[in-house]
Amino acid sequence: MLTVFGSVAIDTIRTPFKVIRNALGGAATYAAISASFFHRPGLIAVVGHDFPKKYQNVLDKFVDTKGVVHANGQTFRYDGSYDKTLSSRRTNKTELNVLKDFKPIVPEGYRKSEFVYLANNDPAQNTKIIKEFDRVKFSMCDTIDFWISTKKNDVIKMMGVVDSVVINDEEARLLTKTHNLIKAAKRIMEWGTRFVIIKKGEHGSLLFYDDVVFPSPAFSLENIVDPTGAGDSFAGGMIGYLADKNNAKTSTIREAVTYGNVMGSFAVEKYGTAGLVRLSKSQIQNRFKYYKKMVQF
Amino acid sequence: MLTVFGSVAIDTIRTPFKVIRNALGGAATYAAISASFFHRPGLIAVVGHDFPKKYQNVLDKFVDTKGVVHANGQTFRYDGSYDKTLSSRRTNKTELNVLKDFKPIVPEGYRKSEFVYLANNDPAQNTKIIKEFDRVKFSMCDTIDFWISTKKNDVIKMMGVVDSVVINDEEARLLTKTHNLIKAAKRIMEWGTRFVIIKKGEHGSLLFYDDVVFPSPAFSLENIVDPTGAGDSFAGGMIGYLADKNNAKTSTIREAVTYGNVMGSFAVEKYGTAGLVRLSKSQIQNRFKYYKKMVQF
Repeated sequence: MLTVFGSVAIDTIRTPFKVIRNALGGAATYAAISASFFHRPGLIAVVGHDFPKKYQNVLDKFVDTKGVVHANGQTFRYDGSYDKTLSSRRTNKTELNVLKDFKPIVPEGYRKSEFVYLANNDPAQNTKIIKEFDRVKFSMCDTIDFWISTKKNDVIKMMGVVDSVVINDEEARLLTKTHNLIKAAKRIMEWGTRFVIIKKGEHGSLLFYDDVVFPSPAFSLENIVDPTGAGDSFAGGMIGYLADKNNAKTSTIREAVTYGNVMGSFAVEKYGTAGLVRLSKSQIQNRFKYYKKMVQF
Repeated sequence: MLTVFGSVAIDTIRTPFKVIRNALGGAATYAAISASFFHRPGLIAVVGHDFPKKYQNVLDKFVDTKGVVHANGQTFRYDGSYDKTLSSRRTNKTELNVLKDFKPIVPEGYRKSEFVYLANNDPAQNTKIIKEFDRVKFSMCDTIDFWISTKKNDVIKMMGVVDSVVINDEEARLLTKTHNLIKAAKRIMEWGTRFVIIKKGEHGSLLFYDDVVFPSPAFSLENIVDPTGAGDSFAGGMIGYLADKNNAKTSTIREAVTYGNVMGSFAVEKYGTAGLVRLSKSQIQNRFKYYKKMVQF
């Protein structure tokens, strides 16, 4: 089984071309929906009483929502604006709401999950929750600059209790105070994780393990409309694929990273979660095959 | 035969770790030496009376120097400083010297070259000189922001008379006023060239032709000391490989781009041309094989 833990949000996303308000968002939402094309995940998250029924229906369609708590209060809300190149995002407003006092509980049925993805959360909470799973074959966490700046020691501790860290290039640099990404990944591996995946947006990703680097270019796209959730869709696709294969061999992980790239490429082609929710498995397979041919020489 | 046309320089390169003064430099120097590991090129360039004998010996070792004119005056000099990440360079001083009034002449023996690389030069001069070759199978040009800012129309014209354009990402964006690199490459192809290679430094390169994109990640390096000449070494390796194979099929061009990446990776590992001049063919072959394995999934 696969469990995804993290935020479900209501997003306002402002791009130079379009503004979408009150859209279904959140790191765990993207990751779990992306993963679901490979292996239906259980989702641990919290939403408020204002969480629209239609979004609950979306979650129900793609994931097991036994772990989604409906709390008293407003759903976590995020408002962000992209610059005209869509490559940098400014946060306008973050309202934690029900996320603030959420004490996540792992449903009994989820405890036997062999695959666990800890999306961006308070690192201390992530470190605590991973211990509630007792048959983990492969766990993975993400983090963002906010936690690196405010709880760096907890971030480092968290990275020591998972099998894999997935992180943006700029955040890896911020965290390790190292510009070179190989050096940055080695530093992160010193903290205890075996795999590091550095996401580089339009430049793809770098997977590190042992003394190996596996670079994979992004699927090249001419029309990117909304990068929101691309990294989460990457991580979700990756761990979903691993859960489906039910192993964490390095050869499987290399394929999983490639599926991660593919899922990220679908996510950015439409606004919000629209790039994922209308996908079919055959579209994913076709793009994977196309990608494989694309990079050959 | 392969001809490389462009600048030979005496460089001062300032990195946060080391300053090298009066080093052998110039776009054509890097490109021609890099190409020479595949196919000995003829070099068309100009140097001054101050050009050190030891540098002439280096050129003589790797390339045919019949096309190198020794003019009255000082050799072209370049002085630049890198920031601490080695990812951006500031020009401190450019002294054109003998380059200013150079009227390049294609030696009789070079006119039958099937492969021609026009390194960064005055685009009008490049457009003129390419016409002096009458059996060209594959020609390629580069350019820099200076020419894009001062002679954009000549740059566009030049790109219409070559088979391939190799250009940095930032320069492609500046030239086409387009952020998305696929759109930028399509724009450049509209001007008449069939192939566009966009170099992305540590992120590798994108090759475009017809409706195909071939992304190739850079060879991942932990220790980069001097990026000077990386792009020129890339282009030189690429066209040297094509000249060696004596064809310009798309499958050969994809391999050539990969060799370009490999040559660029050697260039940045040492200061100045030291990364290239001490190389052996077997080191290049080994890195190519390693690269091929590295990117597989």
